[in-house]
Amino acid sequence: MVNGLSMVLPPEDLLVAVNIGDDFTHLGLRICPDLDTVMYTLAGLANPDTGWGIRNETWNAITTLETLGGPSWFRLGDQDLATHLERTRRLSAGESLSEVTESICRKLDVSYRIVPVSDKPVSTIVATKDGELSFQDYFVKRKCQPVVTGFRFDRASEATLSEPLHKAINHDEIDCVIICPSNPYVSIDPILAIPEMRKFLSTNVPVLAVSPIINGEAIKGPAAKMMLELGLSPSVLNIANHYHGISDGIVIDIADKSEADVLRARGLKVLVTKTIMKNETASRSLAEETLSFARRLRD
Amino acid sequence: MVNGLSMVLPPEDLLVAVNIGDDFTHLGLRICPDLDTVMYTLAGLANPDTGWGIRNETWNAITTLETLGGPSWFRLGDQDLATHLERTRRLSAGESLSEVTESICRKLDVSYRIVPVSDKPVSTIVATKDGELSFQDYFVKRKCQPVVTGFRFDRASEATLSEPLHKAINHDEIDCVIICPSNPYVSIDPILAIPEMRKFLSTNVPVLAVSPIINGEAIKGPAAKMMLELGLSPSVLNIANHYHGISDGIVIDIADKSEADVLRARGLKVLVTKTIMKNETASRSLAEETLSFARRLRD
Repeated sequence: MVNGLSMVLPPEDLLVAVNIGDDFTHLGLRICPDLDTVMYTLAGLANPDTGWGIRNETWNAITTLETLGGPSWFRLGDQDLATHLERTRRLSAGESLSEVTESICRKLDVSYRIVPVSDKPVSTIVATKDGELSFQDYFVKRKCQPVVTGFRFDRASEATLSEPLHKAINHDEIDCVIICPSNPYVSIDPILAIPEMRKFLSTNVPVLAVSPIINGEAIKGPAAKMMLELGLSPSVLNIANHYHGISDGIVIDIADKSEADVLRARGLKVLVTKTIMKNETASRSLAEETLSFARRLRD
Repeated sequence: MVNGLSMVLPPEDLLVAVNIGDDFTHLGLRICPDLDTVMYTLAGLANPDTGWGIRNETWNAITTLETLGGPSWFRLGDQDLATHLERTRRLSAGESLSEVTESICRKLDVSYRIVPVSDKPVSTIVATKDGELSFQDYFVKRKCQPVVTGFRFDRASEATLSEPLHKAINHDEIDCVIICPSNPYVSIDPILAIPEMRKFLSTNVPVLAVSPIINGEAIKGPAAKMMLELGLSPSVLNIANHYHGISDGIVIDIADKSEADVLRARGLKVLVTKTIMKNETASRSLAEETLSFARRLRD
């Protein structure tokens, strides 16, 4: 979705506030998977096959690490490793995560503003029937198999918004907020868990959510599985419920058009359109329609 | 030389006590260049062209790091990175450098004992006309160009011998000590700077040194340049002087045979042989002759 938005907005009009709940320290390196995916995508370096990492990647370090008996469950590509080494080095030297991200973006010729939602760490903890798991343990090591019972966001209550996000809010630069069709529990909620963010979203800035659920399923990732495990049917209604009190509008797929009236009856503005981003044209088109919808919401 | 010794000694008869003065922390990784070179050599992985690192190496991480504006003066190969990541991980988990080295050696199928001289850090500091430099700053970053005026070994006085070295000494397992033809100032002296090592070498264990200087020159590295800068002519006599009170015998090249009598007159046992290890046969042959010489020294 961010890729689509970048195709229709000039750099100064797009600020991507990125989830940091997946971030963790592994092999002494600070790894921020969501920031990296957004950076690599906007730099044109993303691996389209995996949805993470860098295309034309090599795997010599991690393969050797495996030989040496080291942990290899988190697949770090050789080029990708450089990002983590440089980030870790700069953080150790006292830079904030926003500053490090800005610096790496500049080197990658990314002119869009990509900002971590906070410069303080917020860690997603997944409560499962096997006990609490750190996000990467749940997501990568255990391949989302444990049955989830809930989520918490460690240190979210004391986290503040990152400096560039603060500045954008204080300078009244944000005309609307688009909640991308990411996983509501582990990609969006860690952002919403930060008190200042929740407070900002309760002001009169228009907020709209693009549903990650289409016809009862998630295009990718464990969103639908999680909803079922939490006792919720994976539906646009339940997505709307999830963002109740936060979003003013919702974008749903034409496959779910029969739900539009119920959503409208709940006071939501609704855009029904094609939301499956199967290629760049589809991403661009969804971005354009979502932005027009946002403009209508604002007026 | 260690490679040659490994060809003629069974694993249980060779213990390689390795300099740690070059070790440093870079990009958050603990890097031990001498341990790595010995490990890679005995594992058959060493790069014969560079004298460091792994053969058939790739450089994707460091090349990308350079793009990101990170420090790339210390060339870390992708496979080599795995060693540093694993070492750093194990050290952080509380293992000693000896334990980490033993574990990595086992994974690399190296059955010879390779042990850091100490499990505590000892750092070689090079005093130069440009001021004091850390070893890697002098050696890699500044390519040995600054004129040296002296050396010191930070924390050597409080360092103790590593556990396996302690054990070998206490169990009386060491029949003789061979000081390999490494740089006396920056490869051997950091070892000799550890009080327990100096004390051990002053017992009646036979110690012999293989001269790194042949016909006034060093086969590789800055030993001869350093000697000149310290006001010493690069000669086997000055190598003998350097190890005075420590070594009982010296191995010199046939190119220096005219010096043998002067050395003998000073009370040293002398072996004159071919010491240029231009291939494996030459390494093996020097190892065999040096070991026979050591046996004669002991008897």
